[in-house]
Amino acid sequence: LTIGVASTQPSHVQQRIVTPDELVRKFSALSGVVRGDGGLPLSGVAPLGTARADQISFLSNPKYSAQVTQTKAGVVILSEQAYGVLPDKLDKTFITCAKPYVFFALAAQYFAYENAPAHFVHPSACISASASVAEGVHFGPNVVVGERCRIGSGVRLLANITLGDDCVIGEGTRIYPGVHIYRGCKIGARGIVHSGAVIGADGFGFANDDGQWVKIPQTGAVAIGDDCEVGANTTIDRGAMSDTVIGDGVKIDNQVQIGHNVEVGDHTAIAGCVGIAGSTRIGRGVQLGGAAMILGHLSIADGVIVSAASTVTRDITTAGFYTGIFPIDENARWERTAAIVRNLDKMRDRIRRLEALLNQRDGTEK
Amino acid sequence: LTIGVASTQPSHVQQRIVTPDELVRKFSALSGVVRGDGGLPLSGVAPLGTARADQISFLSNPKYSAQVTQTKAGVVILSEQAYGVLPDKLDKTFITCAKPYVFFALAAQYFAYENAPAHFVHPSACISASASVAEGVHFGPNVVVGERCRIGSGVRLLANITLGDDCVIGEGTRIYPGVHIYRGCKIGARGIVHSGAVIGADGFGFANDDGQWVKIPQTGAVAIGDDCEVGANTTIDRGAMSDTVIGDGVKIDNQVQIGHNVEVGDHTAIAGCVGIAGSTRIGRGVQLGGAAMILGHLSIADGVIVSAASTVTRDITTAGFYTGIFPIDENARWERTAAIVRNLDKMRDRIRRLEALLNQRDGTEK
Amino acid sequence: LTIGVASTQPSHVQQRIVTPDELVRKFSALSGVVRGDGGLPLSGVAPLGTARADQISFLSNPKYSAQVTQTKAGVVILSEQAYGVLPDKLDKTFITCAKPYVFFALAAQYFAYENAPAHFVHPSACISASASVAEGVHFGPNVVVGERCRIGSGVRLLANITLGDDCVIGEGTRIYPGVHIYRGCKIGARGIVHSGAVIGADGFGFANDDGQWVKIPQTGAVAIGDDCEVGANTTIDRGAMSDTVIGDGVKIDNQVQIGHNVEVGDHTAIAGCVGIAGSTRIGRGVQLGGAAMILGHLSIADGVIVSAASTVTRDITTAGFYTGIFPIDENARWERTAAIVRNLDKMRDRIRRLEALLNQRDGTEK
Repeated sequence: LTIGVASTQPSHVQQRIVTPDELVRKFSALSGVVRGDGGLPLSGVAPLGTARADQISFLSNPKYSAQVTQTKAGVVILSEQAYGVLPDKLDKTFITCAKPYVFFALAAQYFAYENAPAHFVHPSACISASASVAEGVHFGPNVVVGERCRIGSGVRLLANITLGDDCVIGEGTRIYPGVHIYRGCKIGARGIVHSGAVIGADGFGFANDDGQWVKIPQTGAVAIGDDCEVGANTTIDRGAMSDTVIGDGVKIDNQVQIGHNVEVGDHTAIAGCVGIAGSTRIGRGVQLGGAAMILGHLSIADGVIVSAASTVTRDITTAGFYTGIFPIDENARWERTAAIVRNLDKMRDRIRRLEALLNQRDGTEK
Repeated sequence: LTIGVASTQPSHVQQRIVTPDELVRKFSALSGVVRGDGGLPLSGVAPLGTARADQISFLSNPKYSAQVTQTKAGVVILSEQAYGVLPDKLDKTFITCAKPYVFFALAAQYFAYENAPAHFVHPSACISASASVAEGVHFGPNVVVGERCRIGSGVRLLANITLGDDCVIGEGTRIYPGVHIYRGCKIGARGIVHSGAVIGADGFGFANDDGQWVKIPQTGAVAIGDDCEVGANTTIDRGAMSDTVIGDGVKIDNQVQIGHNVEVGDHTAIAGCVGIAGSTRIGRGVQLGGAAMILGHLSIADGVIVSAASTVTRDITTAGFYTGIFPIDENARWERTAAIVRNLDKMRDRIRRLEALLNQRDGTEK
Repeated sequence: LTIGVASTQPSHVQQRIVTPDELVRKFSALSGVVRGDGGLPLSGVAPLGTARADQISFLSNPKYSAQVTQTKAGVVILSEQAYGVLPDKLDKTFITCAKPYVFFALAAQYFAYENAPAHFVHPSACISASASVAEGVHFGPNVVVGERCRIGSGVRLLANITLGDDCVIGEGTRIYPGVHIYRGCKIGARGIVHSGAVIGADGFGFANDDGQWVKIPQTGAVAIGDDCEVGANTTIDRGAMSDTVIGDGVKIDNQVQIGHNVEVGDHTAIAGCVGIAGSTRIGRGVQLGGAAMILGHLSIADGVIVSAASTVTRDITTAGFYTGIFPIDENARWERTAAIVRNLDKMRDRIRRLEALLNQRDGTEK
């Protein structure tokens, strides 16, 4: 009845103790400077509002600097500039550096380190004999691995996961429960795939034959680079004849839909609920806000930022910040506005008539 | 080969027989009044259009009262007011009350009652020895329960479900197949979680280090109150340093995305495809229409109603009904309208010029 | 530890060899005509840009006909018209026909044919003794089948799937890993359901009792016709008292949400991220673009096409192409435009004042 299962997810342990001086040495590339007690023992990170004396916090935005005077945090990370405008005589330790948020992220990672992950094969896992499995791979309960898969060292497949035939999972990648990956898809090293993600389902391709849809086989696959994160319930479709390609370092949030043959450049970040239609090419370092929709067969330049809930209907060829949202208003006012929007052509015509009338009079009067 | 499995889902049985008089007594808090035959045997609920003589139906909207004259339903629930304007001599039984829709819901629940649910532990369930399990819990096939989970009495975990370590599930909660709950998340009593929901995946938090993303560990969890419903394929992310919190009685539809550190007040209802970005605070009794998008770090007051497909880009501090939808039109007309919208600043300038011209003439003429 | 599992997904084999003459005979209904070498051996399909001499490609849009002069494809399928305007002396073989995209789809299906699918019952599958199972059904690992289900011949249930009690799956239907189907739902013949789809979860129905939500039992189910495809992580809710109904030949992409009691007509295509709210009736041959949102209780006529990201707020009674998207712009320009949109009523009033002023002068001057 009761079967011992190892942890279904990695355990974070937050009992490391470290001092400001040690952190600054550890992340020396960030050139942090300790202002105050470099020997203070720290045991974790916390927001300014709730941090204790043995915790480290950070100031992301100088406009919240009032919180720094009130926080109980033992140490606050902030920029040199923000530090410069603090009131004197704050009896507190600071770490200043050019990238306080990055310093904070690394400190948080340090405290949230994982124990060497358990790895074993649960008896309920079904692993094809033809699969090739490296050292230290964890196969949790009910994990199914198809023929000829190649699983890199240290991969963790947590529970209730299905890999189709010929999948490749790079070393150190962690796949959470309930992920399903179709035949022939590849995920690079050090990736994270969250629960419910589906990678490699058929793209939406049909030819219309007098009103009936004829399926076009989707014979490409999905290739995801190294250091990517794929959010919960996100879907990335396989390509029609060639692959859907996600670059390195791409971070994808939950409930995102990426259509067939899309290409996403390195280090692009895609927030929740975004949809990218088929064959669109997203550049490097792009940021797509939540629920942004990108139509198909478009090209989005490197470094473009699209606001949340905006729809991209044409190529964007220049880096920049783009938005298209109907402004929200009280419903009654919106009703009025929407009626005017629907008839903007008439408003334009009225302006033209006024202009013509005045022009005509100018003529008459001269 | 063939393993007997108990029902993978609760069986609804619709063979109770009840009379109008009994229903009115049973739901006495609603002060229903029977007008007609209080002893009519009823066996179920149905819409006005298809109900039979042994079924009970209801009139939700007085503008459909014509349907009441035609329905074959044995009994119709409606408001006193709607009853008052019905034509005379309808040979039918009515139940009038102040909240006919609530009366109907309770009647429907009465007919759709479940048999005492089967509870047993399927041999394929993997339950950690350190989990604490109350009386009458059902563990269906391939359910995986992590270390130190606490499962309340009468909980039903139906099939292919994963609970991470240290999860808490309150008494009577029903979790449908294919739900995945991450480490440390809590769900209150009498809840319902539908298939494919993912609770507690990492929030989308990264610091940007010269174009590369550094992950910020998400060390909070998700805490969901009592009497909540979470829809199919909905995702609720764990918090970054503190929890994402869902109050009591919150009803969440399918495909909803709730970001890290969001707080949702009691008795709020969230329709399908809604997205709520990180750290936003939604008040009590709020209603978010389908596909509404709420940006991050906002505050939405108690009782606010947001229309479907509207994007909230700023705090809403007053209860009310808010909308922002681009009106749909024939594509050719929309093309014209969109071109004008894109150049509204020019239109405004033309109006200003006209105004200036007329003002100038006023000056000239005087 | 290692259990042999048959392929978790069907294997496509692309080693058939066929000539243009044979293809034209095979799809004779399309009346293709070979122009050139009808005996050329072909082994697959590919896009114009990457095709080899033993592959067949097609020209979908005459504006890309320059690619035809450069492609290395052995054979190109195109329309009679597009063929007519090609430059002379292209040393290549063509197949002309009235529906080149359909011809291409069928050729692609021919090359991507599947081996006779393996069918067996994996020892971990849990199949209720009361289920009725036809010939040649495949039950993969961890598949759970509830009481009294009826499974047609040749159905493939790949892995980690749950069917509730009383489900009916028509012959030849293929269900990918991680699909969950609730009690009493029906899927027709020759269907495809992709991973993570949830069919038959409760519709979102609650009565409001002084601010608290009372659940309305959802006692209908979902009935899906023949030849349908349901995308990954798509959700189709069960009806409140009667069924949610999807017609024949309906193609539904990923992440689509279909509410309770919706009806979708035959051969309608629904792109990714679409939401359809409860009780809406979508006609036959409708096309809904990605992320289109259709409010509840509406009726959409046969043959309507809705643009991506457009919200339908009222009935559409005439076939046609409908759009409603706020045009995207540089953020600073959008800010300006949005401010004007929010105050369009004031702009209208200014125009009225100008008109009144000019009318008044006309009176004065006369």
